[in-house]
Amino acid sequence: MPTFKIALAYDGTDFVGWQRQAAGTSVQGLIEDAARELDGRDVTVVGAGRTDAGVHALGQAASLALARAVDAATLVRALNARLPDEVRVLAAEEVPPTFHARFGACAKTYRYRLWNGDIRSPFERRFACHAPGALDVEAMTAAARLVEGRHDFAAFQAAGGATRTTERVVTRSALAVETVLEPCPGRLLVYEVEGNGFLRHMVRTIVGSLIEIGRGRRPAAWMGELILSRDRSRAGPTAPPEGLFLVRVDYDEPGALAAEP
Amino acid sequence: MPTFKIALAYDGTDFVGWQRQAAGTSVQGLIEDAARELDGRDVTVVGAGRTDAGVHALGQAASLALARAVDAATLVRALNARLPDEVRVLAAEEVPPTFHARFGACAKTYRYRLWNGDIRSPFERRFACHAPGALDVEAMTAAARLVEGRHDFAAFQAAGGATRTTERVVTRSALAVETVLEPCPGRLLVYEVEGNGFLRHMVRTIVGSLIEIGRGRRPAAWMGELILSRDRSRAGPTAPPEGLFLVRVDYDEPGALAAEP
Repeated sequence: MPTFKIALAYDGTDFVGWQRQAAGTSVQGLIEDAARELDGRDVTVVGAGRTDAGVHALGQAASLALARAVDAATLVRALNARLPDEVRVLAAEEVPPTFHARFGACAKTYRYRLWNGDIRSPFERRFACHAPGALDVEAMTAAARLVEGRHDFAAFQAAGGATRTTERVVTRSALAVETVLEPCPGRLLVYEVEGNGFLRHMVRTIVGSLIEIGRGRRPAAWMGELILSRDRSRAGPTAPPEGLFLVRVDYDEPGALAAEP
Repeated sequence: MPTFKIALAYDGTDFVGWQRQAAGTSVQGLIEDAARELDGRDVTVVGAGRTDAGVHALGQAASLALARAVDAATLVRALNARLPDEVRVLAAEEVPPTFHARFGACAKTYRYRLWNGDIRSPFERRFACHAPGALDVEAMTAAARLVEGRHDFAAFQAAGGATRTTERVVTRSALAVETVLEPCPGRLLVYEVEGNGFLRHMVRTIVGSLIEIGRGRRPAAWMGELILSRDRSRAGPTAPPEGLFLVRVDYDEPGALAAEP
């Protein structure tokens, strides 16, 4: 009964999110269906990050236990042969049976892509949020840095998010700018954030607040006040899902069964 | 009654192609519908290149004449407000009424993107053809250069393609390689070809033949023999549409009414 950690990439545009739902196609559902076909029995797949509807992954991690003895390379090929090409298994490795993709994760990295230009490229419509008009990138860059550190991030938690604690450690929070010329001129603002865990909608609400600052509605220092306030009603709106990517999930030791951060 | 040249980008994945068809969504149909809403009467839109189903454009050119007096910037905004975000009007300029987007074009550039890696990124599935396995890029690069020049390209014409002459001048035909690491390692082979005109399926059949050479089934010099043979049955298979982009269309003088090449 081997247990595997798998790395996944997916275009989340047409999915209801990671988690299996009563209706609609979920990434978890697709992988569980593919694994059941392979293993001849029901398989539960645990994902590290429960990405929302429309959110993408470059490096989601998941774990699953199979009854059949199979090697990692065969598992990658067999799952990909059964999955639609919106979802790809990038790698697999055998891990101790105690491994749990969600509770064992010690760090995650997310990326949010903002298209800043009059016209959004048709090739970015699934993968970047459209934020036309003037944006003060310098103020946004300064505000992004204020997110780093150990903070109570209650101000960025979606209503309905329920965790024991809203304290998280953000080890990196940075904005980069790329100039794009083709097919139409624009700037791609790429926000990356790494931390030991994230509350529901946390990254998208940080980005919504960064846009408020970019628009000049708030100064950069407001980001710090917002965090201290722990008041969701003061934060910016939740940025739309199409710009968000789960980039990577890190584990200390593959076999470690850590507690929820 | 102003006449406009417009530049367009589109994700062709879900369209039946440029040209209006009895069933399915066409780019021409979408723009004609948007222009009719704007102008209050039927408008005919002429495209420079009749891209096939699934083929994309970074810089398609089209022409249309309106009854209503409108400036170029307003036309761009008004059409984009009525178009789905798969299609974007990038620019518009007023041209003499003799301008014809198809017959007036003196050069076109196409790009074909090949994903060479075991696993195709989910973010490339709409925009690159998957060609896994070993590919001799040096041989493909040498073969690509043999396409340049004034040749009779009958060997690359789709059955049913009907033009007065199959002679065309290719001014540039080159292969470039990009290394990709995220989300999975691979090489992106980017083929670009520029010429005074292209036969139906010509670029995709050149690419299909380049892949034959890359696989080692034929030497690089075979490309030259293939052109000389003028025999479609000897060429490689037509590469799939998802990798193909119409990059740009050039005109000598916007008002010139040139003959079909």
